[in-house]
Amino acid sequence: MDISKLFTNVLLQPRSPIPLYSQIAGVLSENIKNNIIPAGTKLPPERELATMLRVSRTTAINAYRQLERQELISTKVGSGTYVSNVTLPAAPNPCVPWPQLFVPSPNTQLPSIIRELMASAATDDIISLAAGMPDPSLYPLKNFHRLLVQQFSQLNNSDLGHIPTEGYTPLRRALASMLVNKGWAVKPENTMIVTGSQQGLYLITKIFLEPGDYVVVESPTYLGAIQLFNAANARLLSLPAAGRLPLDLLQDYLIRYRPKLLYIMPTFQNPNGRVIPLEERRALLNLAAKHRLVIIEDDPYGELYYSQQPPPSLKALDHYGGVIALGTFSKIIFPGLRTGWLVAPETVINRFALEKQYIDLHTGNISQKLLYDYLSEGLLDSHLTFIRAEYKKRRDVAANALKRYCSPHLDFTLPEGGFYFWCTLSRGILARQLLHEATKVGVSFVPGEAFYSDTSGSSEFRLCFVTHHADQLVEGIKRLSKALQVLANNNAGNYTLPAITPVI
Amino acid sequence: MDISKLFTNVLLQPRSPIPLYSQIAGVLSENIKNNIIPAGTKLPPERELATMLRVSRTTAINAYRQLERQELISTKVGSGTYVSNVTLPAAPNPCVPWPQLFVPSPNTQLPSIIRELMASAATDDIISLAAGMPDPSLYPLKNFHRLLVQQFSQLNNSDLGHIPTEGYTPLRRALASMLVNKGWAVKPENTMIVTGSQQGLYLITKIFLEPGDYVVVESPTYLGAIQLFNAANARLLSLPAAGRLPLDLLQDYLIRYRPKLLYIMPTFQNPNGRVIPLEERRALLNLAAKHRLVIIEDDPYGELYYSQQPPPSLKALDHYGGVIALGTFSKIIFPGLRTGWLVAPETVINRFALEKQYIDLHTGNISQKLLYDYLSEGLLDSHLTFIRAEYKKRRDVAANALKRYCSPHLDFTLPEGGFYFWCTLSRGILARQLLHEATKVGVSFVPGEAFYSDTSGSSEFRLCFVTHHADQLVEGIKRLSKALQVLANNNAGNYTLPAITPVI
Repeated sequence: MDISKLFTNVLLQPRSPIPLYSQIAGVLSENIKNNIIPAGTKLPPERELATMLRVSRTTAINAYRQLERQELISTKVGSGTYVSNVTLPAAPNPCVPWPQLFVPSPNTQLPSIIRELMASAATDDIISLAAGMPDPSLYPLKNFHRLLVQQFSQLNNSDLGHIPTEGYTPLRRALASMLVNKGWAVKPENTMIVTGSQQGLYLITKIFLEPGDYVVVESPTYLGAIQLFNAANARLLSLPAAGRLPLDLLQDYLIRYRPKLLYIMPTFQNPNGRVIPLEERRALLNLAAKHRLVIIEDDPYGELYYSQQPPPSLKALDHYGGVIALGTFSKIIFPGLRTGWLVAPETVINRFALEKQYIDLHTGNISQKLLYDYLSEGLLDSHLTFIRAEYKKRRDVAANALKRYCSPHLDFTLPEGGFYFWCTLSRGILARQLLHEATKVGVSFVPGEAFYSDTSGSSEFRLCFVTHHADQLVEGIKRLSKALQVLANNNAGNYTLPAITPVI
Repeated sequence: MDISKLFTNVLLQPRSPIPLYSQIAGVLSENIKNNIIPAGTKLPPERELATMLRVSRTTAINAYRQLERQELISTKVGSGTYVSNVTLPAAPNPCVPWPQLFVPSPNTQLPSIIRELMASAATDDIISLAAGMPDPSLYPLKNFHRLLVQQFSQLNNSDLGHIPTEGYTPLRRALASMLVNKGWAVKPENTMIVTGSQQGLYLITKIFLEPGDYVVVESPTYLGAIQLFNAANARLLSLPAAGRLPLDLLQDYLIRYRPKLLYIMPTFQNPNGRVIPLEERRALLNLAAKHRLVIIEDDPYGELYYSQQPPPSLKALDHYGGVIALGTFSKIIFPGLRTGWLVAPETVINRFALEKQYIDLHTGNISQKLLYDYLSEGLLDSHLTFIRAEYKKRRDVAANALKRYCSPHLDFTLPEGGFYFWCTLSRGILARQLLHEATKVGVSFVPGEAFYSDTSGSSEFRLCFVTHHADQLVEGIKRLSKALQVLANNNAGNYTLPAITPVI
């Protein structure tokens, strides 16, 4: 058989990380295994192979050696090189019944929503106002580049070996001193660096939740938290997140169900932007202390305020030691850093560390070192000042555009901080339906249902105003208004509920 | 009260990342909360505070504002600034009973061994031959520094946002093509980047193991795997890792217990260095295929051979599609990269990705991008050539020193690759006891028991020969011989088993 034909569509790459001989062996091996070169075929002598493929004779020899080692070919002295009688069936057979071997999988409905969001944010033809992503063009890359250049030339090699599971020690110290200066009672031993605050939440679920445990969550609340609690087979108790904090209801839950955790975002709540006033924070803490309730305070947006600074966090006010705080640098620096943090009593941090050791030993060193350098040069404050101003501008532009182009079909409250508008649609328009129309005209958002653990939220949606610059933002909102028009015209006058595919 | 005294031991740092006003407020806040400045205390006017601390008046004003926002002080117009009646008790009370809230914890005996190893490897006065750490002075930092400098200046900002859970796409492609050229049948969709191969193992346990499931492990085997399987409440079946692969025993296990997984390191096994010959690999795969057994092939050391190249991996020979391969760059580049990988059928990768999304969304971007650049510039091969030569030298130096200084008290087989000597002590000497003496004279290693799921291994230990350069290695072995002498003299002539603290 003419071996050279097998190489007609193959581009051998002399500058590839893979040596040439190995590229050649790879092509032959694939064809032998797939029975395209049948057993018993005599292969060209090395010299001939070399000429045919325009490579050195050594390369040809090495290619054959690799195949010999794999027992795919054999050389008979004085006779030539032959393809062996390979006993590998071409198709994997008998196949392993993989799905039967998996442990029962949690409801995968919601994760697929998040994955689609992440995917849709990456396509170019749609203006995505869906994912909670900071604007990449605002990442402080110049400073990071400078730090990398300086850092790596002066690096202590041991910084690139294994570091403690709890985090790079200088970074934990810098984080603790940053928080102390915000009025927190925290030592480095109370902190832990994790791979994004997602991992913090994961550790919390692993350490605290057994199937059937109760968890109080706000309604609506962060999608990723609902998923994790569901995956842990926890039972969710909903606390309305609009208006005054319903402490009576919470107390009722505490007495009736003795929930393990309350998961709450007191500042610029995701998705609805609500800020809990100081006095209600204190009342919540008093109630929690009385019942020894553990509070998980998630605060990714607290530094992104556009008018006055929000009240101190629950952790800063924590007088009974029951608040576990979750933070992240993803929203204020860039998500690819993958560095979030936890603050908790030392005994909890120790338990987290035991679990995290199983998961990944520790979070990546380079990000942690970089972040430490960034914080200790005092660069975060000015970056925050810069993005606060920029995001405030975008919020105002978006608010004006929403009023101008989209009323009277939707309503919203101006968020005082964070990333999102939480919009309510006029009666008769469903957010899923709107999303369907909206993607046709090139804009996307997250329908409200994703933020509820029940089936609420069908006429609400979340719109992120920080990812795109003002012009694109306005363009996105104009497109949204087109989609709204389509639906309003369809429903003209009567506002009847149109038929839609059942949700969840 | 004289506020200035509170600042005598405090160094205000004008160049700190924390603004001066916030540093001042932090000191005052701490003292108010601890009741050192009692409620009702009149604080000095801002002008006076500024003079006292040699800061600007604005700084003093801002410090008071921060405390007011925290409701720790209040200003009465025309009268002055007073410490509020703070209702925070000094000690956290009532305290949350944390340990009662945790889910039942797995046996934490073994994790503490690993953590101690990681800690002991970091101290300077002991030559640690314990941890399986590459030598930091051999890390390819120059190339990484150059790549960082180039990379960040040309970086696509979106590379620092969220990337797919399965890994940075160009890196997955580079990995797949690297493996194809080793004879594997693998597409990018069959690969996944994880935070160290530790995370790969963690995902495998999460996806496949329910409490009570059987797992076949070699005996001895990698410590971290035993821990993970134990934590998942799996039941372990031991397969002796010395001599010929005991396929009869494995078949017996397969028939009797229908184990979910076989965890195996066919090449340069950790700890004992054993390499399974090609013919036995094929026989293992045939048996596995017959029983549809899933094989987890862990291969961190395969590239580190010191004489001939080892046989193809199980994954390369996998004819029934039942092998999941685990790899890592920690041992051959540096551990701080935190990038390991998995190869599995696409359906398995998808399930892994769902779980990893809960754990951390994705592994850090900077490491993945860097590693991609490193691989695609073809730098890995020459680095491997370099460290193979260096580690081979160390192995030979260590082997000579062991023979010269430590025989007849210990015995070992020369490892053909990897990181370790697996030593057997003369009758009557226990590894734990030797470790006790050894740390007194400044050298450490891992006692054999750590690698068994039962109580075997008391007269064996593992010694890592790659972490230190030749001189230190010889010095470490000389110290080891001193410790051996002490024990041999104690037991002189009779070799009776001395009393020791019970193990586990």
